[in-house]
Amino acid sequence: MNAEIIAVGSEMLTPWRQDTNSLYVTERLNQLGVAVNFKTVVGDKPKHLVDAVRIALQRVDIVVTIGGLGPTEDDLTREAVAEALKASLKRNHELIAQLYARAATRRMTLTRNNEKQADVIEGAVVLENPNGSAPGQWLDTVYGEHRKLMLMLPGPPSELKPMMDEQCMPRLRKVLPKRYIATRVLKAALIGESVCDARIAPLYKEFTDVETTILAHLGDIQVNLMCAKPALDLARARVDSLASKIEEELDDFLYSSQGETLEQIVLYYLEMKGATLSAAESCTGGLISERLTSISGSSRSFVGGAVVYSNELKSEFADVPPSVLERHGAVSKETASALAEGIRERCDTTLGVGVTGIAGPTGGTPEKPVGLVYISVSDGKQTDVVERRFSGDRARIRAYAAQTALDLVRRKLM
Amino acid sequence: MNAEIIAVGSEMLTPWRQDTNSLYVTERLNQLGVAVNFKTVVGDKPKHLVDAVRIALQRVDIVVTIGGLGPTEDDLTREAVAEALKASLKRNHELIAQLYARAATRRMTLTRNNEKQADVIEGAVVLENPNGSAPGQWLDTVYGEHRKLMLMLPGPPSELKPMMDEQCMPRLRKVLPKRYIATRVLKAALIGESVCDARIAPLYKEFTDVETTILAHLGDIQVNLMCAKPALDLARARVDSLASKIEEELDDFLYSSQGETLEQIVLYYLEMKGATLSAAESCTGGLISERLTSISGSSRSFVGGAVVYSNELKSEFADVPPSVLERHGAVSKETASALAEGIRERCDTTLGVGVTGIAGPTGGTPEKPVGLVYISVSDGKQTDVVERRFSGDRARIRAYAAQTALDLVRRKLM
Repeated sequence: MNAEIIAVGSEMLTPWRQDTNSLYVTERLNQLGVAVNFKTVVGDKPKHLVDAVRIALQRVDIVVTIGGLGPTEDDLTREAVAEALKASLKRNHELIAQLYARAATRRMTLTRNNEKQADVIEGAVVLENPNGSAPGQWLDTVYGEHRKLMLMLPGPPSELKPMMDEQCMPRLRKVLPKRYIATRVLKAALIGESVCDARIAPLYKEFTDVETTILAHLGDIQVNLMCAKPALDLARARVDSLASKIEEELDDFLYSSQGETLEQIVLYYLEMKGATLSAAESCTGGLISERLTSISGSSRSFVGGAVVYSNELKSEFADVPPSVLERHGAVSKETASALAEGIRERCDTTLGVGVTGIAGPTGGTPEKPVGLVYISVSDGKQTDVVERRFSGDRARIRAYAAQTALDLVRRKLM
Repeated sequence: MNAEIIAVGSEMLTPWRQDTNSLYVTERLNQLGVAVNFKTVVGDKPKHLVDAVRIALQRVDIVVTIGGLGPTEDDLTREAVAEALKASLKRNHELIAQLYARAATRRMTLTRNNEKQADVIEGAVVLENPNGSAPGQWLDTVYGEHRKLMLMLPGPPSELKPMMDEQCMPRLRKVLPKRYIATRVLKAALIGESVCDARIAPLYKEFTDVETTILAHLGDIQVNLMCAKPALDLARARVDSLASKIEEELDDFLYSSQGETLEQIVLYYLEMKGATLSAAESCTGGLISERLTSISGSSRSFVGGAVVYSNELKSEFADVPPSVLERHGAVSKETASALAEGIRERCDTTLGVGVTGIAGPTGGTPEKPVGLVYISVSDGKQTDVVERRFSGDRARIRAYAAQTALDLVRRKLM
């Protein structure tokens, strides 16, 4: 079975906004063994929308529309789907009553326009929306002699997600052929995409029944495995078998075999070892701290640290001796080491990490070019420091520096 | 004139990766007065790709394909476009020579497969790609008795963007009817989307020739204005006239009338006043520092600060008296004020900002629920502190707290 997702809304045809809902819906459909073959973004022009729905009905089994179910003039998905299917729309009086009841509890007055949210396509099942006003619709129908499923979902993620999970997934499970899907997400840090692929391709090519996808982003590699079988045990066994071969091949580049983020793994290792961490960040400017503290519960292992952009603060907060700064410069092995050692002492943590470098685009010199970054980890007894030369723009250099720092902490804890 | 963008690649039909290139291409097309009517994502199956190109040729004037021009078996855009147009593909020997020359300077050996990158559609102009191996193609042709432009661009953004700017834009300008487009981006902080719309809708509804779009994201509002006229002066005058009315209406909620980010504006005000800033962040965990330091040149005004997750560090780095923490708690007006005052003193800056709160999902109590955040700004003479109760998940609460802190600094500097 395959699907097309149609995201409806003119704002997603501007340079400023993109459809992200389809990622969520894709994940859920994939769990049921349904592949997404096409995604279409279409605006609020009725003819465009009708044509997009017709094209989708011709080329896939399941059509999911997202958005365009609200009360405004631009919300035309109901009308367009009805026209594409040559079906009629009927105003559902029970739904109208619900709309007015909902408005009353919110002390809102409804304009007549709102009533169109109660228009239901002939033969469709209404999908209740406890998180918003516009209900969704589910239609199991025939188009051009083929059976088609049509799902109409609201655009706001807080309405879409529960409706997909609680109302569409059980219905899809009943209707779709029984298949069991096992998935695994393996993650590795700081290995090139092509190098990674060259190393694991001989492995996954032997598992033709496991779909393997490699994604790389700013020093983070994600290997996705998916297998569908008539029984869950069979699917799991295949995925696990390939996963362990990949784990062995990628060795210590691999940091997670269950899809966790690098910051989650670092915090997990810290907690497991009863260790704590602090960070002194110059060129990453808070990025390492921000990634760690984005995880709930991080305060148990990550106490904080300092953003030491100026030389004065490097000394004030991480006790970097002014003589080191003078002799070796702010961007040097020595300063990185002193940052890691100093912040560790000052924060009284098991480990300290220090980063200093030139994120650019200005500030580079022939000896110390943009992209040069020193990263150090200290445990009080031993201080490791690495030199890296990252390419790309400011954001990329900072992201790679933060990723490398977190990975060094992980390796130190291994 | 209107366009469709077809993003080619199976990875964009997974739950993990989405097309972002189309935003860039959309921006460029909009600059020429070309509206994007559809966006399609399609995988590597030849039939799907051919059909998608055919559908696009039937419904728009300009078709832009992105991706699928590389040397692998999955790179099938050339073949698919040729089939859709019923045109032939010819191997271009000059391009083959260039491919081998390029590989030689990189000390790479080329497999025969690479030669398909030199296949050119009958009648197409080759778009050189100085940043990669796969050239693009430009085709001005007729399909079903209508003139169509077909642009085939490579997927990597570092190849796509220069090719679009340097080779496609001049060609499009020559071919498209002369229209002049003026745009303005106004930005406001911490005003609700519907409140903002209610206030400015009466204004922009009077300017029917200016297209107005409002986008809201995590406390950041963006109002986009666009106007097309036969002369640039006319277009600019209309956009500027509406912009000044909106500026007046939104008053001090508005922080930028030229599209700058809030952190850029804060840094600009700091520099203009010869002032400096430091930050002591608890619940935002480095987010404020990270946003400021993401801007090149920020070191002139933002010296850094501390991420003070633990109580100990609040005292160690921002001199918060332990008695304040004991009496009022880490999440309190008093602690926020002490953080702002303390970090300002310690970093010797004009202004200090302090943030403390409960980002959740755990750690809330009936008196101090998840989402409660105190934010303070001090200039040494006066310390302002605000209490906010943000809703949503951890990421949203942190984002709103950082946005509010930056906005308070901006207001202090105004």
